[in-house]
Amino acid sequence: MDSMMMGAMSKNMESMTDDMAMMDMSVLQACMDACSACEQACTVCSTQLMDCAPACMNCADMCNTMMRSMMRMQGMTPATMMSMLNACIAMCQLCMDECMKHADHSEVCKMCAQACQACMDACMAMKDMMMASA
Amino acid sequence: MDSMMMGAMSKNMESMTDDMAMMDMSVLQACMDACSACEQACTVCSTQLMDCAPACMNCADMCNTMMRSMMRMQGMTPATMMSMLNACIAMCQLCMDECMKHADHSEVCKMCAQACQACMDACMAMKDMMMASA
Amino acid sequence: MDSMMMGAMSKNMESMTDDMAMMDMSVLQACMDACSACEQACTVCSTQLMDCAPACMNCADMCNTMMRSMMRMQGMTPATMMSMLNACIAMCQLCMDECMKHADHSEVCKMCAQACQACMDACMAMKDMMMASA
Amino acid sequence: MDSMMMGAMSKNMESMTDDMAMMDMSVLQACMDACSACEQACTVCSTQLMDCAPACMNCADMCNTMMRSMMRMQGMTPATMMSMLNACIAMCQLCMDECMKHADHSEVCKMCAQACQACMDACMAMKDMMMASA
Repeated sequence: MDSMMMGAMSKNMESMTDDMAMMDMSVLQACMDACSACEQACTVCSTQLMDCAPACMNCADMCNTMMRSMMRMQGMTPATMMSMLNACIAMCQLCMDECMKHADHSEVCKMCAQACQACMDACMAMKDMMMASA
Repeated sequence: MDSMMMGAMSKNMESMTDDMAMMDMSVLQACMDACSACEQACTVCSTQLMDCAPACMNCADMCNTMMRSMMRMQGMTPATMMSMLNACIAMCQLCMDECMKHADHSEVCKMCAQACQACMDACMAMKDMMMASA
Repeated sequence: MDSMMMGAMSKNMESMTDDMAMMDMSVLQACMDACSACEQACTVCSTQLMDCAPACMNCADMCNTMMRSMMRMQGMTPATMMSMLNACIAMCQLCMDECMKHADHSEVCKMCAQACQACMDACMAMKDMMMASA
Repeated sequence: MDSMMMGAMSKNMESMTDDMAMMDMSVLQACMDACSACEQACTVCSTQLMDCAPACMNCADMCNTMMRSMMRMQGMTPATMMSMLNACIAMCQLCMDECMKHADHSEVCKMCAQACQACMDACMAMKDMMMASA
């Protein structure tokens, strides 16, 4: 996400509850970017029509929903955020496992698995930050 | 969902692991229908631009992602399904709480809250079925 | 879509420009329902990983976007609506053509093609209505 | 989009019809990136609940669908691509017009309008490229 837009979004969030408003914006931005990259990698990977494709489609949709929800914090609570992050981590883990089976002979699967891993890591960093500030 | 399409989808799933293939299709169908109805109600409700709107937008996206994932069981495991259902239930609960604040003066919010409640119930029925068959 | 929700949505739209507000609600409702059914059929069909799958994924996303846009008429004009309907018709036509190639040996493709045809017809009825009222 | 993923996607497309395979990948990549940025700007802008919000929600969905379709060229033809690009341009134009009304007092609306303009420009560049190669 563009840094100026991020600044504006951050200002937008000032009216929120303390729990959410005190977030480290760089962790949030990294997570939204990782979700976006993962959605894109999964979308491309699914067009190969290999047997990882259904997991890729599920993961693409979940990552997009996760990203958008982080942009609409006004409609989230810490508890719903935690629950969404857990679902996103679970989908990324499954998609990564499926794509790793083909990583030796598909460059796209290998990159998709890397994008899933990065998205999982970013979601876990979000969870850590939220638990530290709770 | 159309019952003929549901029959075809059910046949499609025969190749899946026992855990997933032994699902009661009527519970699955009811849950997909409730997710679809909730996405639609939340989408309409968000156009009122009341303060429930961000929660409605989040809930609409999560319900669509939940519905699609149930249609792509080949790319799910029981564990990811549970995690997604928990996230969907959490979003529906929050959206319902927000909309109930306006239920007295907005007919749309009242119906949106009802759609959220119905979606939560259907997701919980999915969880119960999965735990019973595990 | 639920008829009570449709009634509430219709009331919601009273503040809109005459062009949009004078729509026949039954044509609009039929179109939203056909888009929803087509998104679902395409989503199931894409899990077969046959060569129609990329068209099915494109069509599922376009139909969902079309449906949601019709629920958010406040953010549409007759010109944008026409343009979106044309795109939706083009995607449905392509997806139907791809699925018809497999209609003899895949029941799911056959039903997906029928859902695409029904969605095209409903979008064309929307266009006809809009041109008649312009 | 990541350049390595773009390279892999480009290779993926080699099996496509000449019309689509001969695309200038940098124009395609710029268009996908502009769609992604516009989806994000519109999603943030819609949380302000100003009267541009319904147009922003419509535009966010259309831009995501446009981006994904460009990643799934195997399920597109030049004709469907043209039709989708026209719909995306129309939605971006409308959203930009709505947001420009608030650009003086909302920094988010101003940036959203800029993202819409950039997305329109990138879609038009795609159309130009496709017409030149036809």
